[in-house]
Amino acid sequence: MHSPAAKVSGYVVLMIVQIIFLVLFWLFVRYEKTALPLAIDAEDAGSANEHVSKYPQFQDIQVMIFIGFGFLMTFLRKYGYSATGFTLFMAALVVQWAVLMKGFLHMEGGKISLSLENIIDADIAAAVPLISMGALLGRTTPIQLLCMSVFEVALFAANEYLALHVFSICDCGGSITVHAFGAYFGLAVALMLRPASDQNETGKLEGASYTSDIFAMIGTTFLWVYWPSFNSVLADGAGGERAILNTFLSLAAATVTTFVVSALVSHENKLDMVHVQNSTLAGGVAVGTVCNLLLGAHGAVLIGIIAGTVSVLGYRYLTPWMTANLRLHDTCGVHNLHGMPALISAIASAIYASMATVGEYQSELQDIFPAMVGTNGTETKIMGGLGRNATSQAGYQLFGIAVTLLIAIGGGILTGAVLKYTNFRNLKKDEHHQDEHYWEVPAAENKEEYELEKVDELML
Amino acid sequence: MHSPAAKVSGYVVLMIVQIIFLVLFWLFVRYEKTALPLAIDAEDAGSANEHVSKYPQFQDIQVMIFIGFGFLMTFLRKYGYSATGFTLFMAALVVQWAVLMKGFLHMEGGKISLSLENIIDADIAAAVPLISMGALLGRTTPIQLLCMSVFEVALFAANEYLALHVFSICDCGGSITVHAFGAYFGLAVALMLRPASDQNETGKLEGASYTSDIFAMIGTTFLWVYWPSFNSVLADGAGGERAILNTFLSLAAATVTTFVVSALVSHENKLDMVHVQNSTLAGGVAVGTVCNLLLGAHGAVLIGIIAGTVSVLGYRYLTPWMTANLRLHDTCGVHNLHGMPALISAIASAIYASMATVGEYQSELQDIFPAMVGTNGTETKIMGGLGRNATSQAGYQLFGIAVTLLIAIGGGILTGAVLKYTNFRNLKKDEHHQDEHYWEVPAAENKEEYELEKVDELML
Amino acid sequence: MHSPAAKVSGYVVLMIVQIIFLVLFWLFVRYEKTALPLAIDAEDAGSANEHVSKYPQFQDIQVMIFIGFGFLMTFLRKYGYSATGFTLFMAALVVQWAVLMKGFLHMEGGKISLSLENIIDADIAAAVPLISMGALLGRTTPIQLLCMSVFEVALFAANEYLALHVFSICDCGGSITVHAFGAYFGLAVALMLRPASDQNETGKLEGASYTSDIFAMIGTTFLWVYWPSFNSVLADGAGGERAILNTFLSLAAATVTTFVVSALVSHENKLDMVHVQNSTLAGGVAVGTVCNLLLGAHGAVLIGIIAGTVSVLGYRYLTPWMTANLRLHDTCGVHNLHGMPALISAIASAIYASMATVGEYQSELQDIFPAMVGTNGTETKIMGGLGRNATSQAGYQLFGIAVTLLIAIGGGILTGAVLKYTNFRNLKKDEHHQDEHYWEVPAAENKEEYELEKVDELML
Repeated sequence: MHSPAAKVSGYVVLMIVQIIFLVLFWLFVRYEKTALPLAIDAEDAGSANEHVSKYPQFQDIQVMIFIGFGFLMTFLRKYGYSATGFTLFMAALVVQWAVLMKGFLHMEGGKISLSLENIIDADIAAAVPLISMGALLGRTTPIQLLCMSVFEVALFAANEYLALHVFSICDCGGSITVHAFGAYFGLAVALMLRPASDQNETGKLEGASYTSDIFAMIGTTFLWVYWPSFNSVLADGAGGERAILNTFLSLAAATVTTFVVSALVSHENKLDMVHVQNSTLAGGVAVGTVCNLLLGAHGAVLIGIIAGTVSVLGYRYLTPWMTANLRLHDTCGVHNLHGMPALISAIASAIYASMATVGEYQSELQDIFPAMVGTNGTETKIMGGLGRNATSQAGYQLFGIAVTLLIAIGGGILTGAVLKYTNFRNLKKDEHHQDEHYWEVPAAENKEEYELEKVDELML
Repeated sequence: MHSPAAKVSGYVVLMIVQIIFLVLFWLFVRYEKTALPLAIDAEDAGSANEHVSKYPQFQDIQVMIFIGFGFLMTFLRKYGYSATGFTLFMAALVVQWAVLMKGFLHMEGGKISLSLENIIDADIAAAVPLISMGALLGRTTPIQLLCMSVFEVALFAANEYLALHVFSICDCGGSITVHAFGAYFGLAVALMLRPASDQNETGKLEGASYTSDIFAMIGTTFLWVYWPSFNSVLADGAGGERAILNTFLSLAAATVTTFVVSALVSHENKLDMVHVQNSTLAGGVAVGTVCNLLLGAHGAVLIGIIAGTVSVLGYRYLTPWMTANLRLHDTCGVHNLHGMPALISAIASAIYASMATVGEYQSELQDIFPAMVGTNGTETKIMGGLGRNATSQAGYQLFGIAVTLLIAIGGGILTGAVLKYTNFRNLKKDEHHQDEHYWEVPAAENKEEYELEKVDELML
Repeated sequence: MHSPAAKVSGYVVLMIVQIIFLVLFWLFVRYEKTALPLAIDAEDAGSANEHVSKYPQFQDIQVMIFIGFGFLMTFLRKYGYSATGFTLFMAALVVQWAVLMKGFLHMEGGKISLSLENIIDADIAAAVPLISMGALLGRTTPIQLLCMSVFEVALFAANEYLALHVFSICDCGGSITVHAFGAYFGLAVALMLRPASDQNETGKLEGASYTSDIFAMIGTTFLWVYWPSFNSVLADGAGGERAILNTFLSLAAATVTTFVVSALVSHENKLDMVHVQNSTLAGGVAVGTVCNLLLGAHGAVLIGIIAGTVSVLGYRYLTPWMTANLRLHDTCGVHNLHGMPALISAIASAIYASMATVGEYQSELQDIFPAMVGTNGTETKIMGGLGRNATSQAGYQLFGIAVTLLIAIGGGILTGAVLKYTNFRNLKKDEHHQDEHYWEVPAAENKEEYELEKVDELML
């Protein structure tokens, strides 16, 4: 085994990080005006609850992050404590860090304004390292994971700022800035941590049990039902309703497609739970960037069909190939659930942007493609913007995903190098995909009691 | 076993169905006006989010359909992949089909308007074949289930149109049009697929394990907590609040009653998980049709007590009798959870309708019983309607459930005949209630690995 | 075993209780005006759905009560039916009782007005005996639990009335009136039911299995994500938004702290699932009473860090000490999750109250500390109140928690005495923490079938 001292020092560092957060909150964070008492002699503001109108969607996203991601990763048969526990640990650390990091990019008067919006953004940011964790699941220590998440979220915040505020791309559901970033960052780390070529076989515990597969379906179904909230939470009005409708239809179509393609390509034409748990969700990712656009129901369904197909084929053929040839292990197949579907979404966004017109988007053009309006002679109520034409906006969409990939992969390689070559402990092959190295596992504590239970069971 | 070709052809048909859906969406479906951009020079509409005010209830219903139904059916110890997986598959197919089918009945200018309302309706429609699936659980192939669901939803949409728009019955929570229809359709299919008399015994895997029973409680509790959303989503204002209150109280009373009656009638006075998982929910079904009426708290509680009692007695005495004497197997006991409680709800609706007066319902009469108002001299603001009196409305409520039963049972018998006597593969007795015929099951793939795990477990 | 007659009589009593509830609902409960039809000639009320604007939070709380508490208690390896089932049973009984009991304290014209608010309150009340159940888990009969809950909720309603309406303390998230009350009441009952000194060892089934620990994480994560709804549901406007933000940050900080402290103090520095399942939530309790105050982000984070630390240390050192020295068994460690964190919250409320000023709280002072305003010369719009100064309000906060502890512990001792010395059957040591005494457990019914299954499993 390894020395307890090494373990302890990692946790102590994380406690210090938590205390640094406390100090930063104290120095820089203040409630936003909406969360402060009205002056006694102020006029009555309208509905007092209007500024928390997104609260139900926020709660849906909370479920996606903590239950959705956590349980989706319980599919490994001896890694359920880690899947649910480290998800909770990482998300709790990251949401605080994201409030600070994203806040630093939007400070007013040297202070960060804290409102519901910030913790919605923080939950979305938490998805990023959780996606990366999926690629690495079972092959890192918790300390490595947590430290990775701190680097990654800082980089994510910078890239998101660049993509949305500098390049002015549209990315309503975050497929480019969240899914592609998280997936390719995680894959780059996985590449750096790849095993020696004589240890490239699949781990002996790298698979599901009957029970763990059903636990994973808890994650899948909650992600499925709440995905429309993830994609629509940052949209308003008609665009928000379209985001809901398009996401719902894309998921439905991806799900039907996933079952069919899974049966067609699997061994003995049996359905594969890995596909059902993951590829059914690819429709939500693939429609993400464009979910608030005028896709039409058929556009959403078509994207879902493509995403489901690509995702299942990725699990069936591409992932094994990458493992065998690149020694790139991707435990949860995030490349198939988040990576490729996000690329599809980026391409779709370029296509739809290239066709966008003022006549079609009317007053929403300035919200959706702010850089397209302003100087090119559109009428009143359309102001600001860089006067890009549709083709140019399409180019920026592609540029946005390219830069995202570059930063994610570059950052992932650097982070992976740090995790591998500095003082971090690395797991040995036979420690992979097991809770017991970091958790008190019931049977291990008291063998006698465990056997009593077995006997009980047999006596019943 | 059976030929892979047969399996493959079924899935290919489902893919073709998905592609037909794509074409129909393209030809017929357009966003509703609320989901389209405002014209640049349009006046500001009020709250941009008003038309998605039902979104939180929609999300609750999503959880009921995908997690609630899916996990409730995981109680069988070797059928958890199918319970959760086929629920996802069926619901994803049906929601698309329901948008189209129900849309065709309400087209404007040859187009279907797509808005949040349509996907709420689609989720409700998905409940119908999922209820039927409960009756058949473990005794059909997935292809049979999916094809059944396509027939059934078309028939459901027609019957619902008839009941609500032609007969003008009240059915706020859908107990008549959704629960009774789904249950008796499913039972009729089960009757057609009944085993030969020498194969009538219970399947050897037709029971729960300790773990699968707890998975099923996930379904039960989510259905329980979100049932008020299912019953109230189509009601507004005061009627919506009553639907919430009545459903909540009826569920609570049914739950207490279920535990008591279960203990009184069960073997050695022990509680039976089947009752707890199902009969506790009977209060939600039994109050469904009348949930927005002026029942009073006591009315809701009384309905809950009756429903809980009838449901537990049904599980204890009626279901075994039907199995033994009619060879009618009802795996989940949908007759006790959905069928009989829906009949109670229909009878209650006739009773309450027979007592409804303008003095009591005031301005809501036209929403709740639109056929009762208009020509009989009520004052302003009450318009339209057929001028039915209360007794006549009560008669229509009973007529509505009678026609629903007729169509459901007739349609179920026809569908069952198609599934049995045409080209569909039927499962053999020893293939019942097992995932492994249609799913890659972990242990089956790699016996050696499985044994390694067992040894690991014992060594811990 | 024990006589069936004794069991049956307990259930019959509960049925009689349910019927008494029915009569009381009939005699005393009427829909509130908002849930009644508008008169035909009434003016249009504004938004018809405004009075159900808290519905999404209500649904979150429903999930916490029925899924959160229920699954959190499934961690015992042979007590999952009881954990989920008795939670459902108790909550269904208590919500009805709470509507009545709390209604009797606020009658108008001899009637209780029923609206969404009442069932929100009822759900909150249901948390109280569920917390107490955590202390007793596995060491009582269901009849004892249910009867306890009826006594306890009556006392809770009285104490809450005293604290909020007589002493005018602030307790937005209910840490004093709900968490402290429930925890110390339950511990007092546990003290009365303590084992003889020769039977003080831990029960042989008083521990988790690998699977039951993951089931428990379902409870933990749902409690975690929806806790902001529990704390904020009774607050409005800016105070409501602060309640959300503070609860979220406190939970996040408590979670990070829990993981670190757990690793530092546990055997071999391994993480302990008991801590992860429970202490991560201590942040939600500890911030409860003060969640709507002007804590600032740093205040919330600091409270979370303290709560996480105290809770883990409580599990690690205090609970074993209490078991060994006081024979006070606390199965779920509610003292560490609810008891001590609630004391922290009460102390924090005294500190923050002592610093509260009109200048800071402006127009909200009258909502948050209604007894502080009125006679001390503040301007218009601040009316009523007892003119307490800040120090005096701080004293009342401490007085409030002291009286709550007194009533909870006194009531618990009395209730425990009734459960122990009157006609109730008490479980024997070897009947503890097992479902099979009150539930039909699958394997017990049919040993042969069970073995068939085992053989099947091995053959796969």
